Amino acid sequence: MNKCSNTSNTLKVKNIGIDTYRENIVFMRSDCHVCQSEGFTALTRIVIHYNGRSIIATLNVVHSDLLHHDEAGLSMEAMKRLTVKDGDCIAFSHLEHIDSLRYVRAKMYRKELNELHFQSIITDVVAGKYSNIELAAFISACSGENLSLNEIIGLTKAMINAGKKIKWHNAMILDKHCVGGLPGNRTTPIVVSIVSAAGLTIPKTSSRAITSPAGTADTMETMTSVEFELNEIKQIVGKENGCIVWGGAVNLSPADDILISVEKSLDVDSKGQMIASVLSKKAAAGATHVVIDIPVGETAKVRSVSDAKKLQNDFETVGKLVDLHVKVIITDGSQPVGRGIGPSLEAMDILSVLKNEKNAPQDLKDRAVTLAGALLELSGKYPTGTGNSVAKEFLENGKAWAKFQSICERQGGFREPVYAKYKYDVLSDKEGLIKAIDNRKLARVAKLAGAPKFSSAGILFLSPLGKKVNVGEVLFTVYAEAKGELDYAINYMKSDNGIISIEK
Amino acid sequence: MNKCSNTSNTLKVKNIGIDTYRENIVFMRSDCHVCQSEGFTALTRIVIHYNGRSIIATLNVVHSDLLHHDEAGLSMEAMKRLTVKDGDCIAFSHLEHIDSLRYVRAKMYRKELNELHFQSIITDVVAGKYSNIELAAFISACSGENLSLNEIIGLTKAMINAGKKIKWHNAMILDKHCVGGLPGNRTTPIVVSIVSAAGLTIPKTSSRAITSPAGTADTMETMTSVEFELNEIKQIVGKENGCIVWGGAVNLSPADDILISVEKSLDVDSKGQMIASVLSKKAAAGATHVVIDIPVGETAKVRSVSDAKKLQNDFETVGKLVDLHVKVIITDGSQPVGRGIGPSLEAMDILSVLKNEKNAPQDLKDRAVTLAGALLELSGKYPTGTGNSVAKEFLENGKAWAKFQSICERQGGFREPVYAKYKYDVLSDKEGLIKAIDNRKLARVAKLAGAPKFSSAGILFLSPLGKKVNVGEVLFTVYAEAKGELDYAINYMKSDNGIISIEK
Repeated sequence: MNKCSNTSNTLKVKNIGIDTYRENIVFMRSDCHVCQSEGFTALTRIVIHYNGRSIIATLNVVHSDLLHHDEAGLSMEAMKRLTVKDGDCIAFSHLEHIDSLRYVRAKMYRKELNELHFQSIITDVVAGKYSNIELAAFISACSGENLSLNEIIGLTKAMINAGKKIKWHNAMILDKHCVGGLPGNRTTPIVVSIVSAAGLTIPKTSSRAITSPAGTADTMETMTSVEFELNEIKQIVGKENGCIVWGGAVNLSPADDILISVEKSLDVDSKGQMIASVLSKKAAAGATHVVIDIPVGETAKVRSVSDAKKLQNDFETVGKLVDLHVKVIITDGSQPVGRGIGPSLEAMDILSVLKNEKNAPQDLKDRAVTLAGALLELSGKYPTGTGNSVAKEFLENGKAWAKFQSICERQGGFREPVYAKYKYDVLSDKEGLIKAIDNRKLARVAKLAGAPKFSSAGILFLSPLGKKVNVGEVLFTVYAEAKGELDYAINYMKSDNGIISIEK
Repeated sequence: MNKCSNTSNTLKVKNIGIDTYRENIVFMRSDCHVCQSEGFTALTRIVIHYNGRSIIATLNVVHSDLLHHDEAGLSMEAMKRLTVKDGDCIAFSHLEHIDSLRYVRAKMYRKELNELHFQSIITDVVAGKYSNIELAAFISACSGENLSLNEIIGLTKAMINAGKKIKWHNAMILDKHCVGGLPGNRTTPIVVSIVSAAGLTIPKTSSRAITSPAGTADTMETMTSVEFELNEIKQIVGKENGCIVWGGAVNLSPADDILISVEKSLDVDSKGQMIASVLSKKAAAGATHVVIDIPVGETAKVRSVSDAKKLQNDFETVGKLVDLHVKVIITDGSQPVGRGIGPSLEAMDILSVLKNEKNAPQDLKDRAVTLAGALLELSGKYPTGTGNSVAKEFLENGKAWAKFQSICERQGGFREPVYAKYKYDVLSDKEGLIKAIDNRKLARVAKLAGAPKFSSAGILFLSPLGKKVNVGEVLFTVYAEAKGELDYAINYMKSDNGIISIEK
């Protein structure tokens, strides 16, 4: 396998260090003997073999001396998946038909898929067989309301089956999730601290941002490490009852991680994929009892109470079928939570609440107490009606803060989140009351400023609904790590200033 | 503009000769000053500026010495679109919001789009602003029956407006189109020869294959040149009344060419996009009267007469609204037409019919006569009921053949199509009558054998429905230019031999 010859369909790997993110790309000279004998041209999908393993990759043809005649370049993802290094001899063959693509086409044509179809698609996705074009077609076909309840169940089960499932000693494992859309709504670290301080087990695996300026994993990473192997997570939880780590690092829902990379670039969410994504991650994480927070507001992800109730019903129905006790809480999503938007700035709010500081954002505290209270009650350990007051007590007596510090210690040590290098104050040009806030535009500004890519980038938001402001008063401050990104956020605000409405 | 400095957002172009087909890709070192100051990472979409022009490209990050710190590589398409060469100094900025993507998202969510929305999408597609991921999402959202009649009209108009429209001196310009799906159905060169011999104007711009083993342009290219500038086409048509050239070369529907490159890789067709694609090309080509052939068969693109009638109605309705006289003819699509499948092999059939050879495929001749007859009648020059006999006369008296030769001369000279290097006979393993033919599988074999990429690859089909065959008799012969592709076609036939059904 390691000898390359001109008569066989083999070429030597050249590590050209090209990062195409999750897509496998192979670079070959148009005049190499493999392209010529096999008739490969740009965008041909090709099977590459090494040492009994194989991957599918998309061909970019090289018309230069970037490669020798006997060399092929692989993108970094392709090298990792095939486990090859510089000089290894790889073999090429034509792509056999990817059978599951016909289910993708069927879904594009609005046919109903069953669990086996989704299983087949997700298995191939996880195996890295789909190009980004094919992933985009699948995501598009499943977007919006395009999946029936049965299809959502099928997709959820397929995604659970595609990854590992963590086994815990405890019979009851708690978890929570918020259906995004609300800038700064970073309750998780507080909820985990309260619930684990109360002696319940909550091994929280969180995601990074998909289309928002920060995910919980991004925020937590400004205060401690979040990437751990499964056995390390078990050790942390064994000692502390809880953790707040990145789910992607333990490969809990590998399908989801791949789909999200393309969803992100399309900036779409879809109900079915959201439910499948959330519940498959919870099931894979070994959760038994899950509280889901759905914020509702005109510019939140879910815009009306009736939509939220439908979603609540779907979450609870699908949950039952995948053996999860799911309780959905519908909350107010009319404005940002706390003051920070972006990883570091949100982390500062969290610390302020945990430390019971006087000027801690009360709204963030209240939401964390509500969610922690719901978890305490869902566990059965605390009677209905007592959850909130117990949760509040754990927060105010400092036990949650002590627990958070212990968790950070176990996760590699606590560090203080920091402010970004560049900042820009957005001033009010009139006097009056804050009447409306466009959460989507606000999130957009934070993203343009560099969040979550740069953890200290984002927004410090100082103008909640109902607040009276004067001319020249700071409405919010934009933070950025790079001048270009600060300028870009500022330019966007100049072109579209309907972010905050002020009325006399 | 041509001076690069470390303090500005500029890098020098390095031509690394990478062919990514239609997508703009930029390669930059992760540690170059632009990536660092702007915060660009893999898959970031970036605006690149040169000399007052700009393009949007997707970033592939380089972690090697492929590039110097002050260099950026561009894919060949990106270099062409930006019109830069090695050493030119290009500037970078963050991507402004691509506004039309929100209509793509709306369509993914099954909202109805209007003409302005499609106009906005198609304008951006033609400007090269969409990544392949975004194109795939749009195509997926518009696939199958996902577009309403109004949306098809909107998309068609948008696609017409996005390209040039050819103006002709003549008031009446004829055209024809076949809604694919039927291997070997290559009537166009014959129809054009008859109609232009009859003194009517038919400047035929044809496409290359999308998902089939051959397009008319591919087939015609085995006999003469097909890529011409618009003024050259006008000269040919001015002399001959007709031509058979590739539409893509004259940029008639630039949107369609880009969409097709992604559709091809997804192997999908959609009714709305098909109608928009066909009619926009006809309108852009300046046609006034168009005959459309819809073959119907169990394994053709359109499977039932009722589907064909719906499509007929949609074609005629949309046609009227874009000022085209459209006549749809529904034909038998139960088996391949002629004997050849693949560019060169189909060309041989065409020549045989035009030359009135004794063993010329009668079915191809009959279909060409029907379509030419319909065009002669649609023109008003020949009374209803006389079209077919006039067409047949032009074929049998040698005038069509003379006209075809003249057209080829004007298009750069005639050449004989040739057979491919490798061939493989598929033999009958029983005695009986040919009862059914799976056109899709047959087309698949021809494609696996290399058609249309290699023009001489394909199938010579010798077993029409109803023919009596003996054990060991050749059912069809597969032709390929590369050994690997012949093997691949053979392997596919071994794994799935339901291509031809024979019964006692």
